[in-house]
Amino acid sequence: MQTNRSPLLLHPPKAEVSKAVGLALAEDIGPLGDLTAALLPPSVQTTARIVARSSGILAGTACAQETFLQIDSYLSLSWLVGEGEQLSAGQTIAIVSGGLASMCTAERVALNFLSHLSGIATHTRRFVDKAAGRVAIFDTRKTTPGLRSLEKAAVRAGGGCSHRSGLSDWVMLKDNHLSVLQIPAAVQLARQHWPARKVQVECDSVEQATQALDSGADALLLDNMSPEAIAKVVDYATRPQAVASSQSASTPPFAPPYLEASGGITLDNISDYLDLGLDAISSGSLVGGAHALDIGLDIA
Amino acid sequence: MQTNRSPLLLHPPKAEVSKAVGLALAEDIGPLGDLTAALLPPSVQTTARIVARSSGILAGTACAQETFLQIDSYLSLSWLVGEGEQLSAGQTIAIVSGGLASMCTAERVALNFLSHLSGIATHTRRFVDKAAGRVAIFDTRKTTPGLRSLEKAAVRAGGGCSHRSGLSDWVMLKDNHLSVLQIPAAVQLARQHWPARKVQVECDSVEQATQALDSGADALLLDNMSPEAIAKVVDYATRPQAVASSQSASTPPFAPPYLEASGGITLDNISDYLDLGLDAISSGSLVGGAHALDIGLDIA
Amino acid sequence: MQTNRSPLLLHPPKAEVSKAVGLALAEDIGPLGDLTAALLPPSVQTTARIVARSSGILAGTACAQETFLQIDSYLSLSWLVGEGEQLSAGQTIAIVSGGLASMCTAERVALNFLSHLSGIATHTRRFVDKAAGRVAIFDTRKTTPGLRSLEKAAVRAGGGCSHRSGLSDWVMLKDNHLSVLQIPAAVQLARQHWPARKVQVECDSVEQATQALDSGADALLLDNMSPEAIAKVVDYATRPQAVASSQSASTPPFAPPYLEASGGITLDNISDYLDLGLDAISSGSLVGGAHALDIGLDIA
Amino acid sequence: MQTNRSPLLLHPPKAEVSKAVGLALAEDIGPLGDLTAALLPPSVQTTARIVARSSGILAGTACAQETFLQIDSYLSLSWLVGEGEQLSAGQTIAIVSGGLASMCTAERVALNFLSHLSGIATHTRRFVDKAAGRVAIFDTRKTTPGLRSLEKAAVRAGGGCSHRSGLSDWVMLKDNHLSVLQIPAAVQLARQHWPARKVQVECDSVEQATQALDSGADALLLDNMSPEAIAKVVDYATRPQAVASSQSASTPPFAPPYLEASGGITLDNISDYLDLGLDAISSGSLVGGAHALDIGLDIA
Amino acid sequence: MQTNRSPLLLHPPKAEVSKAVGLALAEDIGPLGDLTAALLPPSVQTTARIVARSSGILAGTACAQETFLQIDSYLSLSWLVGEGEQLSAGQTIAIVSGGLASMCTAERVALNFLSHLSGIATHTRRFVDKAAGRVAIFDTRKTTPGLRSLEKAAVRAGGGCSHRSGLSDWVMLKDNHLSVLQIPAAVQLARQHWPARKVQVECDSVEQATQALDSGADALLLDNMSPEAIAKVVDYATRPQAVASSQSASTPPFAPPYLEASGGITLDNISDYLDLGLDAISSGSLVGGAHALDIGLDIA
Amino acid sequence: MQTNRSPLLLHPPKAEVSKAVGLALAEDIGPLGDLTAALLPPSVQTTARIVARSSGILAGTACAQETFLQIDSYLSLSWLVGEGEQLSAGQTIAIVSGGLASMCTAERVALNFLSHLSGIATHTRRFVDKAAGRVAIFDTRKTTPGLRSLEKAAVRAGGGCSHRSGLSDWVMLKDNHLSVLQIPAAVQLARQHWPARKVQVECDSVEQATQALDSGADALLLDNMSPEAIAKVVDYATRPQAVASSQSASTPPFAPPYLEASGGITLDNISDYLDLGLDAISSGSLVGGAHALDIGLDIA
Repeated sequence: MQTNRSPLLLHPPKAEVSKAVGLALAEDIGPLGDLTAALLPPSVQTTARIVARSSGILAGTACAQETFLQIDSYLSLSWLVGEGEQLSAGQTIAIVSGGLASMCTAERVALNFLSHLSGIATHTRRFVDKAAGRVAIFDTRKTTPGLRSLEKAAVRAGGGCSHRSGLSDWVMLKDNHLSVLQIPAAVQLARQHWPARKVQVECDSVEQATQALDSGADALLLDNMSPEAIAKVVDYATRPQAVASSQSASTPPFAPPYLEASGGITLDNISDYLDLGLDAISSGSLVGGAHALDIGLDIA
Repeated sequence: MQTNRSPLLLHPPKAEVSKAVGLALAEDIGPLGDLTAALLPPSVQTTARIVARSSGILAGTACAQETFLQIDSYLSLSWLVGEGEQLSAGQTIAIVSGGLASMCTAERVALNFLSHLSGIATHTRRFVDKAAGRVAIFDTRKTTPGLRSLEKAAVRAGGGCSHRSGLSDWVMLKDNHLSVLQIPAAVQLARQHWPARKVQVECDSVEQATQALDSGADALLLDNMSPEAIAKVVDYATRPQAVASSQSASTPPFAPPYLEASGGITLDNISDYLDLGLDAISSGSLVGGAHALDIGLDIA
Repeated sequence: MQTNRSPLLLHPPKAEVSKAVGLALAEDIGPLGDLTAALLPPSVQTTARIVARSSGILAGTACAQETFLQIDSYLSLSWLVGEGEQLSAGQTIAIVSGGLASMCTAERVALNFLSHLSGIATHTRRFVDKAAGRVAIFDTRKTTPGLRSLEKAAVRAGGGCSHRSGLSDWVMLKDNHLSVLQIPAAVQLARQHWPARKVQVECDSVEQATQALDSGADALLLDNMSPEAIAKVVDYATRPQAVASSQSASTPPFAPPYLEASGGITLDNISDYLDLGLDAISSGSLVGGAHALDIGLDIA
Repeated sequence: MQTNRSPLLLHPPKAEVSKAVGLALAEDIGPLGDLTAALLPPSVQTTARIVARSSGILAGTACAQETFLQIDSYLSLSWLVGEGEQLSAGQTIAIVSGGLASMCTAERVALNFLSHLSGIATHTRRFVDKAAGRVAIFDTRKTTPGLRSLEKAAVRAGGGCSHRSGLSDWVMLKDNHLSVLQIPAAVQLARQHWPARKVQVECDSVEQATQALDSGADALLLDNMSPEAIAKVVDYATRPQAVASSQSASTPPFAPPYLEASGGITLDNISDYLDLGLDAISSGSLVGGAHALDIGLDIA
Repeated sequence: MQTNRSPLLLHPPKAEVSKAVGLALAEDIGPLGDLTAALLPPSVQTTARIVARSSGILAGTACAQETFLQIDSYLSLSWLVGEGEQLSAGQTIAIVSGGLASMCTAERVALNFLSHLSGIATHTRRFVDKAAGRVAIFDTRKTTPGLRSLEKAAVRAGGGCSHRSGLSDWVMLKDNHLSVLQIPAAVQLARQHWPARKVQVECDSVEQATQALDSGADALLLDNMSPEAIAKVVDYATRPQAVASSQSASTPPFAPPYLEASGGITLDNISDYLDLGLDAISSGSLVGGAHALDIGLDIA
Repeated sequence: MQTNRSPLLLHPPKAEVSKAVGLALAEDIGPLGDLTAALLPPSVQTTARIVARSSGILAGTACAQETFLQIDSYLSLSWLVGEGEQLSAGQTIAIVSGGLASMCTAERVALNFLSHLSGIATHTRRFVDKAAGRVAIFDTRKTTPGLRSLEKAAVRAGGGCSHRSGLSDWVMLKDNHLSVLQIPAAVQLARQHWPARKVQVECDSVEQATQALDSGADALLLDNMSPEAIAKVVDYATRPQAVASSQSASTPPFAPPYLEASGGITLDNISDYLDLGLDAISSGSLVGGAHALDIGLDIA
């Protein structure tokens, strides 16, 4: 699926990788270093294989590589599977060569990155495969604290797309904001203060959605709405007058809007949402519902 | 289960909480701040409830509290459920009062901590309940990179116990070390260089285990061994001459050697391992197999 | 101009303020502390005024407040002028009360923040006043390294708006990218890989601009184009067929686009650009062309 | 002007460069990385020129170099103009070769360093040229928060000199200190507590200056004094009895003093101050009055 | 003494070395860099020797090496004496080649690491030599704030052993804890909450010690007890029923309980404690009583 | 001795204290927190005394205070002895009240700061007492890596003075610099490039010293010179022609110089150096030769 994609699309920014690996190694190595590796004869060189113990999608290779090299820049790694590619159980992912002691010290942290991020990529791919290109699959801000940049890259490695990375990205009017703001006024305020930013409105009813559309929102997040309700919104959004109405508004005419659904959409029921005319489906479970993928290091 | 336990047992160290929250807020808030909260009238005060959307065990309250207060030290929180306590679906966990804008900004990060850590505590509690006090349930070093201190506290909140926090804690001779060291020599080296440290040997056969016991290891990690094989090791370890003295003590007979099993032990088969005479069962799936618990913030 | 605006619109995020102040104080105070303040009798209390020495727009009050309080939490400040408000020469901005030694130590760093950021707000306001509400005034990524979040807030305090905060915000296809990508293919790639993100194309000719419009770009940055050329682009952009063409594209129909001009637009010639139908004008000189505003601290 | 000068004189310390570049890249790249560069074919190699768009003095080359290399250590740079050297409009400053995507990502931050610091060097050189070697030109502590080390190096690249880097450097008795201390007692206290440190007194009248001289101050900062008044101070400072008086003091005889003027000295009136016998003129406007120099990156 | 020991046993973890050196260089170099080295002709290359000015044990070589290389990666070092090896006065420890200016800048910080850590190793070796292998010599948590990891490695380089690295390592019940807990209950609580951790009890009387032994403590810290009292505790601890099993093992009898003495044991009286049957003696004076070893850098 | 001294003279800058304490607590507390304090009943409140176990000079109170408060802001401390004051064995230094568990956790780190820094203050005071006001006693750059700011404050608390805090402070021409520079040229270069900075020359012979004086150096460091040789230098320095010669130089006439001796001056022989006319004596042994002072925490 990733053929010809730039590594910049699949990997987190280099500085994020370096920082995350530094923190992870610090918490694992501790103040005295690896007590056990210190017992090994320092000169022993070896070769090891990073091996998938179950099938899935590989992610986290940049972090794993960085982990081995932060421990020992003389280790060498050769990757047989690329970021975002399919793994089968038993498949060799990479060959690591160099000092045995360094490898033992780096092993757990490197595998923790690979397991955690491949788990996310694997779970994402299940949604992407079900979506079959008819809607885009988006992550959310429901990520593991401190690892958002890495997890969003893993979602992309799995074939999903990155939604807002945080609160600075664009305006998202949610239920809690709408407890004190009316949608039209809120959209207008957003246009006034953040004119370069997309304005998305979270809606949980057809009425809210049509109000948001009439207010000229750039995007809707249809939250916990039934396929039938979503269909009504899509129908309203693509009627000529929708465009007309926003055209006549004083704010810039940003119609037609981007339509995204979320809430309660699982691998079991996602097929009910694919033919409704949605642009995207987003799900916090890409991250929160993923299991660590079982990946190990075998010394030959 | 946590009645009378010191908060120091259930929460991560304060500085870890503060650092993790700082990093998580930084990645969420971004360079421009919360674009949407900036549209709210600044003077609006409100009250919100943190609510469990499904049942489980609560963890991460120190992180959630710190998140709200780092955003706005004038917010006030009142916790109705304590760290490590049972949650039922729909139950109110805490009441938050103060500025609406601050609450909207803090909401997602606070919930991400609660969901992630409560997911771990909840999954741990399933193992602990199955173990029924007959063996201790331990975590491992298979944790999410950068969050080990927090996740190990969540395991304790769930009733589990903390294994090694990292490579400095004690000597653990694993298969990769034993590829170049003999068990007796390795144990002796460990005694010589780290005399104050516990020495644990990972064994995958009865032969290895008896060799480790004969070598005077303090603890064994019986990895991927069948209940039958484990029974043989326990039998060998508890031959009268081995532990006469500690057996007679009034404290739990945790001395020598400590017998722990790991590998392939799930909620489905754990009952096969409870009556073998093991001291502990450890499982990376307490963390890697947990799902985020669904917890939300409702503005009244 | 800022009446009723939320402080979140005008100030940088709190953590950015705290971090910037910490770094600035560290570089000023040095390893031995304030040698001169150490000579003062420690008990002397005083009152000082922060005073504008020339007219302008005030910005940086959150940083100045934080500076005084990081030095001495017993200092108290009373602000007579708010962030983003007009200053006249000689006007008292704030009253500071407390220990003289602390005040002497904090003075320079607090004033450096106020002077630098008020200089930017003041220069921005000149553009905003000239624009007279007919176009929005945007900053750019041409900011002082390490101070972007603060400087973008100062631009907002001056009445300007925040453009991209960085490379993650949205897709901006510039000349260097277009040296190897064709506009239509580039826009389509952007839609495919970053479907939730705005796609802006930098154009330096009417031909490029019409191509970008036909390709369905969300926004155009018309760089170094004459008012006449800009007028042609605006005309093309608002013709019915522009919408039609993007409607017929396979990518989501994101017309009509946001039109922004940049390059060589100064206070002297900006009036030539106000009636062309542009949405925004952006200028790196809001930051790079600003002078520090002269602000002092007078002890009564 | 910089011929044969050590790079250590012109560049900030290496760790300051590395830290400033790291912070600047972090704020620009953001959590998702460079969205646009990610669309480029990853294999494209190119050559670009860093070009001066107007004339001035070059500074910030160490920061620019570090920026490109932090993004991609395979980029190679060849500098045709050295730190502190003259630039003419259109002149090529450096040639950059390597991956196009890396170059696009690094471009803005590298140029921001060059523009900001060259702006300072350029403005400094104007003062230095006017001074024509008859007085030294000094910076002040009026610098951009967080960038002092870099900006002071840029002043040196422009031919100016570094004054105090912060409050730990030496004792500087200013008006706010003298609101509670008498000059003679203050100088004596300074000698007692910081005997190894220079003691400078800020004076705004001939009376204060002669008192400071009589008190044995090492240096005077003549603030906002007319050329006539300054001439009187210089005359007093070089009279034999000035030396005599400090000789008779109990503190070490640190006469004759270093004489520096500041306040209201601009490019327009600086020539009035050159023949008065001053050692130095200091001005916050070297930094606060500088404009970013226009420097661009052109891909061949 | 260190023959064949892994470098991991003698050196601090690499990341600790890198962080400590970074902090030390930052505090020494300051904001303007090395003013004096900047006066040297930049092209001068030289060779220098790091020389012991008095006899002792070498420690801190990893820090010194890192110091030179952080300043200038083109410097090359050749170590003639290894970490933990004996130095005689006048002996050359290492040869440094490269730029003179870099060497001058790095000199003081590199020597400060070597002097401080070699001082600790040297003082430790005195205790180790007196102990003559009959007891192990342990450090304590009485270390210089911020340098614990480095100082504990220096103790190991001197032939000593690492006790707890901090409060997370194992349970240590001291007098202040026992002011509110009874020993048997405290040991039982420790077993319950931290079942994988060693439990050590600090005792200052034979009565406390026998109570701790009866409670099943893994280790005793006999604090400020006379040799006679210690002998009684050892006698009680080694009653046949207590350790029959571990006594019969071939490994050193380090199992239960581990007997350690501390408090008032100096080089003068340590011989009174060597034949009592203790496993270890710990002393804060390994660090707190050490003098910096005199080590210099001579340019050929 | 410290009567009426500003706390700014005796304590390190607040941010240095806070940073050092944060690092020290992090290394002590570890990832799981204080295992033992977690066993205490959380509600127990107590009062403890910080007690001197031997006589000396108190330093480090700001660090100790910060340590207790970082652990638990509800602890309260009352200091009975001030920074820089004399301690007798057994004297109570401070009373600490609050939670027992917090106190146990903070105890070791707080005492490590007090012991280390009081050891330095105590050793410094011995030199200061011997000097009897006839020369100032200075520290050097021979400090414990990472703790320079704290240790220099401790020297001041002991009555000594702060020499250079680092390489940016002033120019110090040492033997290694003079291996390639002639003194007169070096002093002139220093004047040219760092005109605001003091220039000190390290001399090890009368010839070098007179050359440095003739070159107009501001200060001399007479290194490892005999009292007789020092006397000759002092004599030369105070001859009228010394002033005359620098007066006639083209560089600013900075005579008479500051005369400092160093090298091999101990408590035993310092009296030989007091009547020579020196301004100061500096010694690395104030820090490197100090022992930790024995200070404990007793729970009532």
